[in-house]
Amino acid sequence: MKKQNTFRYKFIKKECNNTNYFEKSLKLHEKHSGKIEVISKVNIKTKEDLSLAYTPGVAEPCRKIYENAENVFKYTAKGNLVAVVTDGTAVLGLGDIGPKASLPVMEGKAILFKEFANVDAFPICLDTTNVDEIVNVVRLISPGFGGINLEDIGAPRCFEVEEKLKKILDIPVFHDDQHGTAIVVLAGLINAAKVVGKKLEDLKVVLNGAGAAGTAISKLLLSSGVKNLIACDRVGILYRGMEKIDDAKTALAEISNPENLKGSLSDAFRGADVFIGVSAPGIVTPEMVASMNKDSILFALANPTPEIMPEEAKAAGARVIGTGRSDYPNQVNNVLAFPGIFRGALDVRATEINEEMKLAAAYAIASYIKEEDLNETNVIPSVLDKGIAVKVAAAIAKAARQSGVARQ
Amino acid sequence: MKKQNTFRYKFIKKECNNTNYFEKSLKLHEKHSGKIEVISKVNIKTKEDLSLAYTPGVAEPCRKIYENAENVFKYTAKGNLVAVVTDGTAVLGLGDIGPKASLPVMEGKAILFKEFANVDAFPICLDTTNVDEIVNVVRLISPGFGGINLEDIGAPRCFEVEEKLKKILDIPVFHDDQHGTAIVVLAGLINAAKVVGKKLEDLKVVLNGAGAAGTAISKLLLSSGVKNLIACDRVGILYRGMEKIDDAKTALAEISNPENLKGSLSDAFRGADVFIGVSAPGIVTPEMVASMNKDSILFALANPTPEIMPEEAKAAGARVIGTGRSDYPNQVNNVLAFPGIFRGALDVRATEINEEMKLAAAYAIASYIKEEDLNETNVIPSVLDKGIAVKVAAAIAKAARQSGVARQ
Repeated sequence: MKKQNTFRYKFIKKECNNTNYFEKSLKLHEKHSGKIEVISKVNIKTKEDLSLAYTPGVAEPCRKIYENAENVFKYTAKGNLVAVVTDGTAVLGLGDIGPKASLPVMEGKAILFKEFANVDAFPICLDTTNVDEIVNVVRLISPGFGGINLEDIGAPRCFEVEEKLKKILDIPVFHDDQHGTAIVVLAGLINAAKVVGKKLEDLKVVLNGAGAAGTAISKLLLSSGVKNLIACDRVGILYRGMEKIDDAKTALAEISNPENLKGSLSDAFRGADVFIGVSAPGIVTPEMVASMNKDSILFALANPTPEIMPEEAKAAGARVIGTGRSDYPNQVNNVLAFPGIFRGALDVRATEINEEMKLAAAYAIASYIKEEDLNETNVIPSVLDKGIAVKVAAAIAKAARQSGVARQ
Repeated sequence: MKKQNTFRYKFIKKECNNTNYFEKSLKLHEKHSGKIEVISKVNIKTKEDLSLAYTPGVAEPCRKIYENAENVFKYTAKGNLVAVVTDGTAVLGLGDIGPKASLPVMEGKAILFKEFANVDAFPICLDTTNVDEIVNVVRLISPGFGGINLEDIGAPRCFEVEEKLKKILDIPVFHDDQHGTAIVVLAGLINAAKVVGKKLEDLKVVLNGAGAAGTAISKLLLSSGVKNLIACDRVGILYRGMEKIDDAKTALAEISNPENLKGSLSDAFRGADVFIGVSAPGIVTPEMVASMNKDSILFALANPTPEIMPEEAKAAGARVIGTGRSDYPNQVNNVLAFPGIFRGALDVRATEINEEMKLAAAYAIASYIKEEDLNETNVIPSVLDKGIAVKVAAAIAKAARQSGVARQ
């Protein structure tokens, strides 16, 4: 247990003991040896079937693609295939458990893609944590894929990997831990703000946990109109001029904290309208919540045990509360976003997933709940509703066209 | 059309014009956009389904694998997953058409794996032709796969790629263009020799085309008991001391041609019992066939147009004739071998596919035809008979155990 985050695992285990999920999950995974399967969409029963799907007939689709590379979308599965790429360094709350141990999560991701948006997704678990090697492998295997979903790659390397890949590939590259989470948080915040009657641009937002998700949430919220966002990390409030923080955090301090406040998480909480936690179990106290403005909004997303339990937050005065859990209202879960996002991007052969598309996805998720149904315990739609991916896909496709990154 | 082998394509096209296979194949590939699909083996209908297949339950199979890497075979699809890896440089007869244009062939291979042996296979088409880059990518993506099927990588690079990968990986690495073809040719030869009443060790075998398949066929035949094998290439008979040939051909000359003959393909033919062509359409003349020993055996495998057409070879005196075509008897087709080979290797978690296993596979395919059913036009079983893969898998598993490379 050198690398694994045993602290987090303890919380997951505690959570799963009640439901017996661990035992049941092991049985489920053992039953079929994993969760994915690669099947044929065509029949291979006769000699003619063989001659068309394979030699000699297959020579002609090959030649059509050779003549015009765009035909690869017409004659192969590329256009519907997403690689779920990880280096296994930031898996769930488990930490750096390596590529093999990350496979169950990546297979899980792949089947959610299929189930919610009919996207074919395939796990690529890499035996390296070197940024340039990760970038190079993804580049070299990219001819067969229509999109790249980066997953559970630790910060700050994930930023560099994504940035480099976006530059060299002409297919969408999307780090779900960053942007998927950010999109769902923004969707929830759009609705929560409506419920409490505040505007995004007037909110004071405190975010804790400046890792992959925290950074992306901060950026997307600022893109969406939020003006006053204060990002915190273990060292407290991030501010310009701060020392001993990595480049990603320095960059985050540059764009947030307009008054350049210094201090602790508690200091940040005072007078805040919104708290967003992507950090660690139990680090928010009722006192912190009580120091927020009236009608406060809390997204306590440490999983499975939030920064503060909803009951406590409520008692301390919070009005809208979201978590990552399925057993409380307002579950922030990436599955609301990534299937529809890739569905829409693949449908129009988008070359990238840009800021406009992310904002469009957030608004699509938010507006999935009708105005009249919005209330404190209903700001984020149910993860099992498959209509969401359809709506998100349409919004993504439209935004891709409008922002000029759609190829069809 | 810089790189494509238009000479070969012309023959494939001519062949397919008669049957309209090109038009039909394009329609088939366009209908579903390619041929493969990645699906779920488990249900995702309820919140509990999600909690078991994904978070939080999935943390436990992850942790079990983290504790003991062997558990990856128990809880993931790895143990049944084969990567079909190509650089797109030697695709069918089409030549160096690149990774995207090779996708229809790789998807075809993947669905044959599934159809004939329930092996899940996934195309990995690489945007590089550099040996070390290919080796490195395959190494880095290997955690998710139970085996590596190398495909349509040009000679002599394919030898180096395979050799290096075999050294560094603990899962089977198998270049099908080499060994798959060799195994089926040997199977056919075992039966053809029975039909004509000759022994393998007494045969004079002439092979033409010292590329990937030719080299592997030569090696496997020599392993199987053949003593007198003469390999030819464009330059004529390969002999020790020959100049201006690459390392692979030099190595082949080392192990073949016991009398170190020199001369042309015609010279080699005189007094031969067996001809095996993996070369080019129409290069064998009736005169060459007529110069062979009585009861001669010809496997003219250039595809789709053989080195000599079966009718001509027959008229010139050949007794047993095989081709790569489905419209003549004795079709040499790799699909007789690779599905069962990987099935057997995966079933016992073999660390490699060694010479003993290849020989066992050839004998399994040969003995699939009952002694009483053997005759000139029935030395190789039908490609559509799914019992073959079952038998091959059993033989491979047994040989893996006996040769000490099975892990279970």
